Amino acid sequence: MKSEALPKQVLIREVGPREGFQILPTVYPVAEKLRLIDALTKASLSQIEVASFVRPDRVPQMADAEDLVAQLPAAKGTEYSALYLNPHGFERAEKSGKLSNKGWLYTSPSATFLKANNNTSIDESVAAVAEWCDMFRRYSKRLHGLMVSNAFGCSYEGRVSSSAVVSLVERFAAACEAAGERIVEVCLADTVGMANPKIVRELLVALRPLGFTVSLHLHDTVGLGLANVYAGLLEGVSIFETSVGGLGGCPFTPGAAGNVATEDVVYLCEQMGIETSVDLRLLCEAAKLAEFIIGAPLPGRVYRSK
Amino acid sequence: MKSEALPKQVLIREVGPREGFQILPTVYPVAEKLRLIDALTKASLSQIEVASFVRPDRVPQMADAEDLVAQLPAAKGTEYSALYLNPHGFERAEKSGKLSNKGWLYTSPSATFLKANNNTSIDESVAAVAEWCDMFRRYSKRLHGLMVSNAFGCSYEGRVSSSAVVSLVERFAAACEAAGERIVEVCLADTVGMANPKIVRELLVALRPLGFTVSLHLHDTVGLGLANVYAGLLEGVSIFETSVGGLGGCPFTPGAAGNVATEDVVYLCEQMGIETSVDLRLLCEAAKLAEFIIGAPLPGRVYRSK
Repeated sequence: MKSEALPKQVLIREVGPREGFQILPTVYPVAEKLRLIDALTKASLSQIEVASFVRPDRVPQMADAEDLVAQLPAAKGTEYSALYLNPHGFERAEKSGKLSNKGWLYTSPSATFLKANNNTSIDESVAAVAEWCDMFRRYSKRLHGLMVSNAFGCSYEGRVSSSAVVSLVERFAAACEAAGERIVEVCLADTVGMANPKIVRELLVALRPLGFTVSLHLHDTVGLGLANVYAGLLEGVSIFETSVGGLGGCPFTPGAAGNVATEDVVYLCEQMGIETSVDLRLLCEAAKLAEFIIGAPLPGRVYRSK
Repeated sequence: MKSEALPKQVLIREVGPREGFQILPTVYPVAEKLRLIDALTKASLSQIEVASFVRPDRVPQMADAEDLVAQLPAAKGTEYSALYLNPHGFERAEKSGKLSNKGWLYTSPSATFLKANNNTSIDESVAAVAEWCDMFRRYSKRLHGLMVSNAFGCSYEGRVSSSAVVSLVERFAAACEAAGERIVEVCLADTVGMANPKIVRELLVALRPLGFTVSLHLHDTVGLGLANVYAGLLEGVSIFETSVGGLGGCPFTPGAAGNVATEDVVYLCEQMGIETSVDLRLLCEAAKLAEFIIGAPLPGRVYRSK
């Protein structure tokens, strides 16, 4: 068989400061988070998700989101973003005036997960699209992406079929069109690490006729992370959400990995001649800083050898 | 792009008892090695490399090779083999009468590595083929395989080109033919973990016209192991040499991984519907036993979650 063409370049969206610090039991000081964000910015990452605007009583690790965003470096060439799950969180994020002007919608084919994580149903998440689009316009944001959590499987409901994801994306696309907006990017999240290269490719192939830019947010829960990244590259995916050092699992439990590590993905790409525009050496320094802040080895592999 | 056909089934050759115990600084008791080999046998692994017949003064970890082979379980359906690098080692292995009747030749495109590891040159390794074939016949063995160490790169000489490997394999094939024998399997070893999915596929494509069964022996030094396995599967590779728990690196240094872990490869295959005939649950038990014997977490990922 002939080797497929790989993308010439990929965009890395760093999510470690949000996903990593959110899941860890410790509440880390804003200054430490900012040190890491600064190191990631210096490594030429062009997109960094820095915080979640979620309920401080439920997620105390992110209670400092406003404070953190207010102190973000004024970096040229790096776009900072934050996660929100409801209008209140969105408005808190917007008050800072410092974040990306791209609006995101969130959903999942797993009704159980969506209820537990976002306190909403699939139908409600579709029905809310018009309101979100209004809100984006009010705040001079443009609708950009649809994040699909548990796109490959879910701890509650098991394996998710490609057709369920395709239907869900079609419903969101139609709702956005009815609201006068258009989804640009669909991000498929393997939230619990149930993907494998075969189903990654099957879902990408199934989504292709819809014409969206599709990105991948992969977790490395059982070690298939980089194989899944490679599967995505083979299907032309050129945007990956990753986490410095693999932050996002529990570093105090060996092997309980989080997102696929940013530096491992950059290394894989570089080794195959794919440009990332990220400085791997400085990125590995940032991973070492993350390890120092956390106080335990992170699951990422490449940073230890650079 | 259309997803390629994957093999329907793969053969796993377990090399952990040899590669793992050989590289560890401790000399483990024969009884502990046999416990692990027994657990691997019970997990239905059909081929297990159990020891190296190398110089006891240089590799004291393998000084017990005769003793170990003498006590191997009489397991139906499992073929045990051992590594040897010179005629003396081969004759020591043969005296046991209990090992596989398949003969292997060893070489490498890296002259520096070959000198350091096997105390020979590339030309000498080719010239020795006739003598090896004679010896195999004398001991009623059949020439089976050619092991190519550092097939993708080498710490001494850097990246190895596909054409260098193809030429080397052609020279061995011609020498075997001249000696009235035929190579069945060519095993490509990524001895130091320098492979990536792109060059794995390039070398497999380059070797295809020669018509050999090609197998892969991959190390997971920087975490690309499973991505490289997937690349091999996409090119039709159906034999992988792997190591239970990822034994073969230094488990006391986080991230200094050895071979790609047997149970991780079996899991990857199973998830994609590829048969391995291995019992994953019993294999994970064997990995836990290996962890217990070594006294430190191993780099394998799947055994901790099963």
